[in-house]
Amino acid sequence: MKKDQQNSAANGLEAMRHSLAHITAAAVQRLWPEAKFGVGPVVENGFYYDIDLGETKISEEDFPKIEVEMKKIIEEDQKFERSEQPIDAGIAWAKQNKQPYKEELLNDLKREGTTLAKELDTSMMGLPAGISGVSSTNVEVGKVSFYKNGSFIDLCRGPHVETTGKVGAFKLMRVAGAYWRANEKNPQMQRLYGVAFETDKELQKHLDMLEEAKKRDHRKIGRELDLFVFSDLVGAGLPLFTPKGTVLREELLNFSSELQAKHGYQKVSIPHITKKELYEMSGHWDKFGDELFLVQSQETSDEFVLKPMNCPHHVQIYAAKPRSYRDLPQRYMEATTQYRDEKKGELNGLARVRSISIDDSHVFCRPDQIEQEMDAVLEMVRDMYSALDMKFRARLSFRDDSDKYLGDKKLWQDAQAILERVAKKHQLDYETAEGEAAFYGPKIDIMVLDALGREWQCATDQLDFVQPERFDLKYVAEDGSETRPVMIHKALLGSVERFLSVYIEHTVGKFPIWLAPEQIRVVTVNQEFETTKFAANILEQAKEAGLRLTVDNSNESVGKKIRNAEVEKVPYVLVVGEKEINSGRVAPRIRNDLVVIPVQSELSVEDFLKTVDNEAKGRVNKSSI
Amino acid sequence: MKKDQQNSAANGLEAMRHSLAHITAAAVQRLWPEAKFGVGPVVENGFYYDIDLGETKISEEDFPKIEVEMKKIIEEDQKFERSEQPIDAGIAWAKQNKQPYKEELLNDLKREGTTLAKELDTSMMGLPAGISGVSSTNVEVGKVSFYKNGSFIDLCRGPHVETTGKVGAFKLMRVAGAYWRANEKNPQMQRLYGVAFETDKELQKHLDMLEEAKKRDHRKIGRELDLFVFSDLVGAGLPLFTPKGTVLREELLNFSSELQAKHGYQKVSIPHITKKELYEMSGHWDKFGDELFLVQSQETSDEFVLKPMNCPHHVQIYAAKPRSYRDLPQRYMEATTQYRDEKKGELNGLARVRSISIDDSHVFCRPDQIEQEMDAVLEMVRDMYSALDMKFRARLSFRDDSDKYLGDKKLWQDAQAILERVAKKHQLDYETAEGEAAFYGPKIDIMVLDALGREWQCATDQLDFVQPERFDLKYVAEDGSETRPVMIHKALLGSVERFLSVYIEHTVGKFPIWLAPEQIRVVTVNQEFETTKFAANILEQAKEAGLRLTVDNSNESVGKKIRNAEVEKVPYVLVVGEKEINSGRVAPRIRNDLVVIPVQSELSVEDFLKTVDNEAKGRVNKSSI
Repeated sequence: MKKDQQNSAANGLEAMRHSLAHITAAAVQRLWPEAKFGVGPVVENGFYYDIDLGETKISEEDFPKIEVEMKKIIEEDQKFERSEQPIDAGIAWAKQNKQPYKEELLNDLKREGTTLAKELDTSMMGLPAGISGVSSTNVEVGKVSFYKNGSFIDLCRGPHVETTGKVGAFKLMRVAGAYWRANEKNPQMQRLYGVAFETDKELQKHLDMLEEAKKRDHRKIGRELDLFVFSDLVGAGLPLFTPKGTVLREELLNFSSELQAKHGYQKVSIPHITKKELYEMSGHWDKFGDELFLVQSQETSDEFVLKPMNCPHHVQIYAAKPRSYRDLPQRYMEATTQYRDEKKGELNGLARVRSISIDDSHVFCRPDQIEQEMDAVLEMVRDMYSALDMKFRARLSFRDDSDKYLGDKKLWQDAQAILERVAKKHQLDYETAEGEAAFYGPKIDIMVLDALGREWQCATDQLDFVQPERFDLKYVAEDGSETRPVMIHKALLGSVERFLSVYIEHTVGKFPIWLAPEQIRVVTVNQEFETTKFAANILEQAKEAGLRLTVDNSNESVGKKIRNAEVEKVPYVLVVGEKEINSGRVAPRIRNDLVVIPVQSELSVEDFLKTVDNEAKGRVNKSSI
Repeated sequence: MKKDQQNSAANGLEAMRHSLAHITAAAVQRLWPEAKFGVGPVVENGFYYDIDLGETKISEEDFPKIEVEMKKIIEEDQKFERSEQPIDAGIAWAKQNKQPYKEELLNDLKREGTTLAKELDTSMMGLPAGISGVSSTNVEVGKVSFYKNGSFIDLCRGPHVETTGKVGAFKLMRVAGAYWRANEKNPQMQRLYGVAFETDKELQKHLDMLEEAKKRDHRKIGRELDLFVFSDLVGAGLPLFTPKGTVLREELLNFSSELQAKHGYQKVSIPHITKKELYEMSGHWDKFGDELFLVQSQETSDEFVLKPMNCPHHVQIYAAKPRSYRDLPQRYMEATTQYRDEKKGELNGLARVRSISIDDSHVFCRPDQIEQEMDAVLEMVRDMYSALDMKFRARLSFRDDSDKYLGDKKLWQDAQAILERVAKKHQLDYETAEGEAAFYGPKIDIMVLDALGREWQCATDQLDFVQPERFDLKYVAEDGSETRPVMIHKALLGSVERFLSVYIEHTVGKFPIWLAPEQIRVVTVNQEFETTKFAANILEQAKEAGLRLTVDNSNESVGKKIRNAEVEKVPYVLVVGEKEINSGRVAPRIRNDLVVIPVQSELSVEDFLKTVDNEAKGRVNKSSI
């Protein structure tokens, strides 16, 4: 589908969703005529409306009766009628109808004009509108637009569907507290959320997906499998990884650096704080603003920050000595942490944290080396995500004709042609997005698809023509002249925390053998000396081979012990008792998703461990036993 | 030597050094009668005196004439005569003799009494004294003591040697600016440093050691071998490790975790910032005070700090779920960073940094497991330092009978007995130091000896009875009761930066094969196709084997290329040309310190790479070729 087709389809769905926000408010007004309304924008997959019922509070138990009212309004197939009025008439209407929030918006709009309108336009889609300067509306200067369906009238910039009958399928989902205009000092209203799609089938698919996503919630699985914990004493958004979670982190990061080492990347190591001067020079100081953690030195007058990015540090290593064309590319990689002072309300398990571990790399190369480097990155991306058994698409972000882009235009054009060439060479499923490049260079983003069909941006591969300029980086070219290198920012996993949140939900915690924190569980049928010794012997052999094996020699029943291992999603379970001791052979129970041919084979302990070791080293997705 | 003997010897040497400080001042007074004097304490290996000559500045060129004057005073064999005077008489003396710094000290002393005296007593050895409460002096309340030799009189608490003839061997070393009483707002004085020993031989030995240490200065070698860099934009005390330096870091840290994994330690991963509440509860908030980097969140009201220690974080992982006696020991290890806001003047290359990487571990165990855990730690220490070819001694710090120690006394006694038992079992060269334990538990410190005979505290192994109490840690004992675990803090390398500063100076940058950032250099005799191909082929094989090999195919002469490799201290150099291509055999040049039998052997490329690989994996200290 082409981009403008997508946009128009999205706009149709958007109008449906926004119309449903009005219908929700209209239904609430029928049930609670005293209701005061805030704003009701479209959000991902649906809409919400902020409502104030005074002492009365809407609960989820009220949803059926609200939905009944909404359905009535839909059946009535009311026309959405647009009208325009002078802003003062609008204020009078709000006053008369006891809608203080609308009144406040209109007064602000009158006083602050287009500035406020623009702000509201970007921050609260769908509301309000009506004065010139808001591009999506067509209203005379000094006027505001209203929409009316049935007896419900709302200040609104539209657009809407024609009649209430054309809104598709919907469902109210939840109600939550929300401060008026997101300010804690304002009254708390109730935000009523709904989802909406064009067809019942699409709605049901979305609801099923939500149901499945709930079961897969990485926070829940993280707790059940003991992967990470949070502590009130440490703080929100600052996960602590347990031994099991750390195995996942380390195996992923080791794989990433293994792939990179193969392509000539070398590890470097940088401090996590820096004087703010470094980020002033790089330009990040302005860019990150409030998101920066400021670090106060008590011993010196230096002002420090926790690094929000690693590139300027790697630049310092490059810049520390003269470089010749023969020394390039310099490829630095590091699994390190960057910090973002996220709002508490935005934090979410591992998906959004304040301390972000990245498999970050920076290449400093000659312009004629861009292609080989980009090619190598896509090879690494393919190796990484095929080992992880995840599909992906690519988005190539290019410049447009505006003058906001820095760097030589010819360099941009050549680089964009290269990106498209390597994308084709690697047979990527890709789209190009003109005008979506950062001001400093074009890029390839890798969008990874999870088992629920959700897309996540993980790997990224970004050209940078500007930072080498800002830091005055150079190399001596073959002709002896001082030349500017090009920089490439690259990550295969991106934020390891965020990737883990995706991957845990993708796999439901059923990790492949190479990643499983516990690869093998030995379950003893009794606690007799011979059995205990046999199990301990297997443990010793596994340790030698570098495999992660534990022995359950507790006095639970064998059935209970096997179930425990299943609940903990251990790939292999070995039950050992007299039979196994006598034969020296084991019949491994294999986690169901790993089984290719559902035949249980018997093999010697040595052969079993050797096979698992090969599987782990080969990073296979299925058991070969 | 027993501890009190050592102390008395040190005191004798201390009196000599302090007497030399007076003699220095007396000599300066003879040369510049207008000199104003600050303080003149004893420091490691010598002494200094702070002097203010107004516009006149002493330079190193003045040292010979000062030393001549000093020798005269020594030859005169003047008696050090002690006298006591009321503090006001002392002030009058200072005024009359135009000694404003002494006058200020005496006025402060008069006003603030014992508090100031105590502060000065610990911060500025040797000066001043005279009022009760200062344990080392024997002066009547309200009086101060003076010492006189020849015509030179100084406010001083002593003690001194009998006569100026009994001061041993000395040498003036350097002069540096120093603010009066270490405050930038005060006048800048000149600090004149000297070293002093009982005999000429000891002095010469020290001077030789300094000369050798200068050659081995890790900052110099770090630059020459391109191991780490500093950047003004990043800040002082914040090293950035280049690819080569990062190899050293990683190999050391990997070895440390390999040793630990063998003993059941598991990696965990924690954030570098935390709410200050964590350190308030642990007690570190008070302990570290000014050394803490405070982190300001712009998005929340939380107050954060950069972690100065890792233990309270690991405690949070332990505390996150119930533990049974069967789950213990829990052994957490992590190569992570702690932060100390050191004063800029105290920073020194890698030896003193603000961002400190530690191979830190914490064991949570039952009291009956202390011995096995301590035993394991000493085994790891032995394995670590024998691979590093460094000798070490141990110091066992025990409690005394005072009541400053927390935790059960019986637990302390048992634990101390265990420490001594394992020290004996491992045949450690150790001393015990009563009264030197921290308030929370006894410990073993490992003092590593470098090639210059200097001792460095690196590994540490510390019992902690208090933090489990503060965080209310528990496990369910076999009898079902809730019991307190014991904590062990352990590091094998300690600060990796500091260890590297020691190790670089110990080895002069001649790293063993397993640590060498570049293990093999291939030097081509010409740049012909066949030679280049042969070299590239060796490179490919080395890469496969995980060896660090580079090819020097530049158009320098073979001699120059070999010398370059020698300067860069590469363990193995392979010269390849027609002969090698035809025979497929190479004659490796081996760095001289690695050679056991000085015979140059010839072997096939495969055998050579295999041998180097074995040496690297075996962490050997000598070449087996």
